[in-house]
Amino acid sequence: MSLMQRYINKLDSLNFEKMYNNDFFETWTKTFDELQATWTVADALRKLREENISTKIFDSGLGISLFRDNSTRTRFSFASACNLLGLEVQDLDEGKSQIAHGETVRETANMISFMADVIGIRDDMYIGKGNKYMRDYASYVDEGHKDGILEQRPTLVDLQCDIDHPTQTMADALHVIHEFGGIENLKGKKIAMTWAYSPSYGKPLSVPQGVVGLFTRLGMEVSLAHPEGYEIMPEVEEIGRKNAAAYGGKFTKTNSMAEAFKDADIVYPKSWAPFAAMEKRTDLYGKGDMNGINELEKELLAQNAKHKDWECTEELMKTTKDGKALYLHCLPADITGLSCKEGEVENSVFDRYRVPLYKEASFKPYIIAAMIFLSKVRNPQDILQRLENAKKERWMK
Amino acid sequence: MSLMQRYINKLDSLNFEKMYNNDFFETWTKTFDELQATWTVADALRKLREENISTKIFDSGLGISLFRDNSTRTRFSFASACNLLGLEVQDLDEGKSQIAHGETVRETANMISFMADVIGIRDDMYIGKGNKYMRDYASYVDEGHKDGILEQRPTLVDLQCDIDHPTQTMADALHVIHEFGGIENLKGKKIAMTWAYSPSYGKPLSVPQGVVGLFTRLGMEVSLAHPEGYEIMPEVEEIGRKNAAAYGGKFTKTNSMAEAFKDADIVYPKSWAPFAAMEKRTDLYGKGDMNGINELEKELLAQNAKHKDWECTEELMKTTKDGKALYLHCLPADITGLSCKEGEVENSVFDRYRVPLYKEASFKPYIIAAMIFLSKVRNPQDILQRLENAKKERWMK
Amino acid sequence: MSLMQRYINKLDSLNFEKMYNNDFFETWTKTFDELQATWTVADALRKLREENISTKIFDSGLGISLFRDNSTRTRFSFASACNLLGLEVQDLDEGKSQIAHGETVRETANMISFMADVIGIRDDMYIGKGNKYMRDYASYVDEGHKDGILEQRPTLVDLQCDIDHPTQTMADALHVIHEFGGIENLKGKKIAMTWAYSPSYGKPLSVPQGVVGLFTRLGMEVSLAHPEGYEIMPEVEEIGRKNAAAYGGKFTKTNSMAEAFKDADIVYPKSWAPFAAMEKRTDLYGKGDMNGINELEKELLAQNAKHKDWECTEELMKTTKDGKALYLHCLPADITGLSCKEGEVENSVFDRYRVPLYKEASFKPYIIAAMIFLSKVRNPQDILQRLENAKKERWMK
Repeated sequence: MSLMQRYINKLDSLNFEKMYNNDFFETWTKTFDELQATWTVADALRKLREENISTKIFDSGLGISLFRDNSTRTRFSFASACNLLGLEVQDLDEGKSQIAHGETVRETANMISFMADVIGIRDDMYIGKGNKYMRDYASYVDEGHKDGILEQRPTLVDLQCDIDHPTQTMADALHVIHEFGGIENLKGKKIAMTWAYSPSYGKPLSVPQGVVGLFTRLGMEVSLAHPEGYEIMPEVEEIGRKNAAAYGGKFTKTNSMAEAFKDADIVYPKSWAPFAAMEKRTDLYGKGDMNGINELEKELLAQNAKHKDWECTEELMKTTKDGKALYLHCLPADITGLSCKEGEVENSVFDRYRVPLYKEASFKPYIIAAMIFLSKVRNPQDILQRLENAKKERWMK
Repeated sequence: MSLMQRYINKLDSLNFEKMYNNDFFETWTKTFDELQATWTVADALRKLREENISTKIFDSGLGISLFRDNSTRTRFSFASACNLLGLEVQDLDEGKSQIAHGETVRETANMISFMADVIGIRDDMYIGKGNKYMRDYASYVDEGHKDGILEQRPTLVDLQCDIDHPTQTMADALHVIHEFGGIENLKGKKIAMTWAYSPSYGKPLSVPQGVVGLFTRLGMEVSLAHPEGYEIMPEVEEIGRKNAAAYGGKFTKTNSMAEAFKDADIVYPKSWAPFAAMEKRTDLYGKGDMNGINELEKELLAQNAKHKDWECTEELMKTTKDGKALYLHCLPADITGLSCKEGEVENSVFDRYRVPLYKEASFKPYIIAAMIFLSKVRNPQDILQRLENAKKERWMK
Repeated sequence: MSLMQRYINKLDSLNFEKMYNNDFFETWTKTFDELQATWTVADALRKLREENISTKIFDSGLGISLFRDNSTRTRFSFASACNLLGLEVQDLDEGKSQIAHGETVRETANMISFMADVIGIRDDMYIGKGNKYMRDYASYVDEGHKDGILEQRPTLVDLQCDIDHPTQTMADALHVIHEFGGIENLKGKKIAMTWAYSPSYGKPLSVPQGVVGLFTRLGMEVSLAHPEGYEIMPEVEEIGRKNAAAYGGKFTKTNSMAEAFKDADIVYPKSWAPFAAMEKRTDLYGKGDMNGINELEKELLAQNAKHKDWECTEELMKTTKDGKALYLHCLPADITGLSCKEGEVENSVFDRYRVPLYKEASFKPYIIAAMIFLSKVRNPQDILQRLENAKKERWMK
């Protein structure tokens, strides 16, 4: 049986009809069947492209990216995903636009969407803001579609918000699934999601929160480690606990990096800002209190500096399962002696895992494409079959 | 008879051959047949897209946008129109380019056009400059084509200049045609094109001028209202008078918003700067006299502030035809209590008309596409028929 | 025999198989057969487009442009070439990205390349840096491809570096080949590559060096002229000497513009910075010594000012072969009395050659497309034949 046939059979066994004409926000708002459908379609699209078969399901149409923070890899992942499906990317650069000039979000959401099939938003800066902004966008284009303003209803994809980073963690998970030879082999495995020191400040919590929210659904033990004062959002911890119970996994917390690394099958050491501090910063920005923000930054950097020992070292790696835990990172990492004096990870550790790290990242364009595909196509199995049968060359080699 | 057949028959009844390989500047440089052809093709392209039929007449090619002022909706409308026809958008960002470095316009016009099928320019800042700049561009690419430098002759589309805003007013008119159930139902109807107060300063005159220049050709009464000192360009008023005479319409002027609103079927209240002041500003910029510009801005804001009573209120709306006049705006509007303290329109009025306002805007991408289509295709009827018969899916649903 | 058949026969007579899956850096790293293949494919692609035949060899895929200096014409040439072949352009704007944030080049090169078929880089600012940067990029994506991270290996195209400007000089050469009615007619012809005065400072050496490196292979006499102190890189002069010997040409140096112009068939007068000064500037930037840089700029401008007599005048043009030498420039030129008070060329000379100058520039998009085509297609003759036979309309006229 062909690989594509196996993907199609897998999809036949899953219930994901609610994904049609829907958005992709936090992974925990999706059923496990829906997550599996996403991974399956991502693999199928990758397979088709590797066989030089076009996967364009759009002859024309726009994919709009709205980045409220700098980005290279997510920007290119989104652009790659849109291009793979036949959509042209248009960046909504708030600098170039008139949005600053008192324009309401509802209006902008409709004005840019007359021919938009997907809108990808990254808004991870302010606690309590980013996710809400995306959901507002979704409700406004929904309304516009129902009111007959928008001929099609653009799909919203969360390219990172203050709560979750679904395109990242879904790519991380697909990487892990491939590395461990199948989702079934992840049951009982331990992943250490641990804080690590970085000379920078104010990194989003979306990755650790996303990992807690997603990996607890793979029947794994998620060990969340951070120094005191670096707590993540309590709501997400609650989700982790519920998932662990529901999916036969485990969710533990510790203030010791060593404890988390002990016998871990996978480690994910990265820096993030304390949730409470991010909330405070959001208020300060709201008030435009720049002195307060500078003060806060000083405090946070000083606080970080107390935990320079939170580094992913060779020594710590030795304590993991057979000393061979899979090292994950969303990149870019703060690499001690390479990109900074003291950072999240020892250069030799990072360097040894460079190839798997890049592979991890390589899944993101396909994950985003799968999210769009499942929202835009009523019967994915049929369309995948049509694409394979059509055998339209992506590239005249 | 199919709707498409009716569009094709309509086109058969019109004479618009001069549009082929031509540009689209002020609407009053086009015959009424040419305007009707544009509206008809816009409707036809929209119909095809709604039926999920590809309208790509280009397999490759570039659509170049040159924005000399910020823009969201016009930028996305142009990008949508290009994408709809198969052209990839390339922004000529004068920041990124070397144009500042003593490069002549003629040279740039040719250098960017080797594979350009359309160039859309927005240049509405300086009286006497924007329209001239576009026409220079047109003459230079024309020359380049004749000299054998450019294999194809790019079409110029005026995306807003100092004199007219044809893509806006043509979209406004198509919206009105649909709302009133046909162009024939507009005869004798009254539209109030009135100034309104805004806390901002220096808004272009292109919309009121464009409305005067276009709606007087629909056999309508155009009532232009503004406080003393907010006159538009006399040349455009003259065009309004001539059109009214030629097309059985009426063009009246008043300094009373109430008089304009009285029994109006349509109202278009929006702020603009006095023509004379814009001329003065243009000179000051020419001289680089920044103090003079700041002075002028203060004066204008003070002058505006004397006319805060020029607001589109519920009370004024009651005085319109059956209290139900259609409210138009090019967006974004200055909404009292929403986007500013005191503005062009009362929040409740704006909110009641939000859906029709967004629909009004939704015509712009199709209007721009129609302008390009009619310039690029020798026999639009044949091509529309070919596209419908081909039934190429825009999107594999 | 059809023109396309002649192009195909020409390609059959050449050996260029090493271009497949390879990059395009300095022209002197290519065999003469490979250069001829590039010119031939450029002509063939242009012919197809002129016949309104689609030349898209990609159904989807990205062309990434990385400009580390402002650019209009090269940016649009690259975008046009990508569009011509079916690739969507994505700019890697280091402002928008996180590259500044301690990210290594190797990582970025891989992160942006998951669906990249070509990467065009312009990095001409710092001696000893730009070319190295591109070659690093090439080695990193090569590595990424071998490691199974990148499904395809993106082609690198040098869009101008500190050493060469291959897309410019290859376009210049194709223009000359057409003007002189064939490559065979260039043997023994003289080209004056001379320095000229410009009020600006720090113009790259890539053009004069590229001309020395390429035109000496056409059996021509390349006369390099500049004031003392404006030497180009000695390595490139050495290449010029070797080429002259190997290809039956001549490479001479002089400090007299008049001597270079004497009986020249072609003249290429343009400003550049002294190589030694560029090296010094690179060091100063490395140290972040801004005062030093300003000092250096003053010195260089003063040094330039001593050579205002290095201008391409009507008088000098009279001394060329029959007073009718072909005037070349990469544009934009500093035109005396037009774009500056005193510059590289007299206005009347420039104006007389404007049409051929624009034609010269028009070859660049096709040259870039040919470079990509020859790297991406295993059997160019077959694909050109397939494209011609398919006769897919580029544009439904």
